[in-house]
Amino acid sequence: MEERVHTNTQYERELREVKESLIYLGALAEQSIREALDSLLKRNSELAQKVVDGDTGIDRLDEQIDEQCLRILALRQPTARDLRFITTAIKINGHLERIGDMAANIAEKAIILNREPQLKPYIDIPRMAEITRGMIRKSLDALINEDHTLAEEVKREDETVDNLNEQIFRELLTFMIEDPRTTHRALLIMQISKSLERISDHAESIADAVIFMVTGENVRHKYPGTN
Amino acid sequence: MEERVHTNTQYERELREVKESLIYLGALAEQSIREALDSLLKRNSELAQKVVDGDTGIDRLDEQIDEQCLRILALRQPTARDLRFITTAIKINGHLERIGDMAANIAEKAIILNREPQLKPYIDIPRMAEITRGMIRKSLDALINEDHTLAEEVKREDETVDNLNEQIFRELLTFMIEDPRTTHRALLIMQISKSLERISDHAESIADAVIFMVTGENVRHKYPGTN
Repeated sequence: MEERVHTNTQYERELREVKESLIYLGALAEQSIREALDSLLKRNSELAQKVVDGDTGIDRLDEQIDEQCLRILALRQPTARDLRFITTAIKINGHLERIGDMAANIAEKAIILNREPQLKPYIDIPRMAEITRGMIRKSLDALINEDHTLAEEVKREDETVDNLNEQIFRELLTFMIEDPRTTHRALLIMQISKSLERISDHAESIADAVIFMVTGENVRHKYPGTN
Repeated sequence: MEERVHTNTQYERELREVKESLIYLGALAEQSIREALDSLLKRNSELAQKVVDGDTGIDRLDEQIDEQCLRILALRQPTARDLRFITTAIKINGHLERIGDMAANIAEKAIILNREPQLKPYIDIPRMAEITRGMIRKSLDALINEDHTLAEEVKREDETVDNLNEQIFRELLTFMIEDPRTTHRALLIMQISKSLERISDHAESIADAVIFMVTGENVRHKYPGTN
């Protein structure tokens, strides 16, 4: 890569644009998660609606990146590492778009929850959200720096998120059984927790794609207990 | 395409192999859904375990197809419709793999449910499963025949599945509130319903990819109410 840094062909620019667009999309996705959580914690349904509406922008950027990548594949016929980068970018793009969807789902549940009295103080949910946001950032850093060690760190964090999700599930189940009036709210919180767990899965898939790009090794299905 | 049917170059063979592998993967995914449902309806946990174990085979085939596609991209540098087909195949492959995961998730829940007395007769769940299996088949038929009308049919069926999922959710919520002893089982059935709804989403995404391949039009985010 080094010998290329100072060249500035149109083709190099196009590859760099894909990278930059992915970083930007990742930042948008992260922001959506943060705002969706804020809308829940601060009971701010206006902010939640902003997240739901903002998902259109994420979808549009996702389409643009797909088109950038397809154009490069068609017109530049990249080979070797450039080809690997483009096919990885297409995958990562899809995951980031789904992460945006999940953030919007969380915001939708927050709007419903904000209409009712708060069931309990949120402790694990914001922690999960914090971890998943860090996972997205790290997995994209791993892409930019072609750093598979960082990508492997993301994979380990997915386990923490899975455990938190199960813990939240069990806790809410107890609420529901002890007082059925809490059932609807508890279900909504379970769904938020599940959405965060799915965000974590997508971040893990991004990390897998980076590891494959860097090492050529397919680790997606290597870890027991993962899908 | 017609003028190619009778040629038989190595390259043509490779493209055909990708198509055939996708059809086969689709058939495996469909079979997993059918068996996961059977394991629930007939309370057969052995069959459920078979579905869970069988997911490894789906994962392996998914990796092979990815490699086939990357090899073609790297060595054949396809252009125009072949390029579109390969990039579509990569996407579809990812969705089929996720569908396999969802079927395994359903089987896992069935194993837990089979340990307890049955909560209620299943009516809508098998119906949902039947529709989603048809959606997978149709979306792959649409790919093979480059038939975007069929793909659009798949998109309409996704709505039916979403509605069934909501109906199941509301019904089970009533169960839980009226008798908290049903809570755990009701939650498991909700998760099965949600997995079927996600299978339907993946089938819809396959249909979207086919429509894009055939018409060049991006319909993914065009329909209101979809993510």
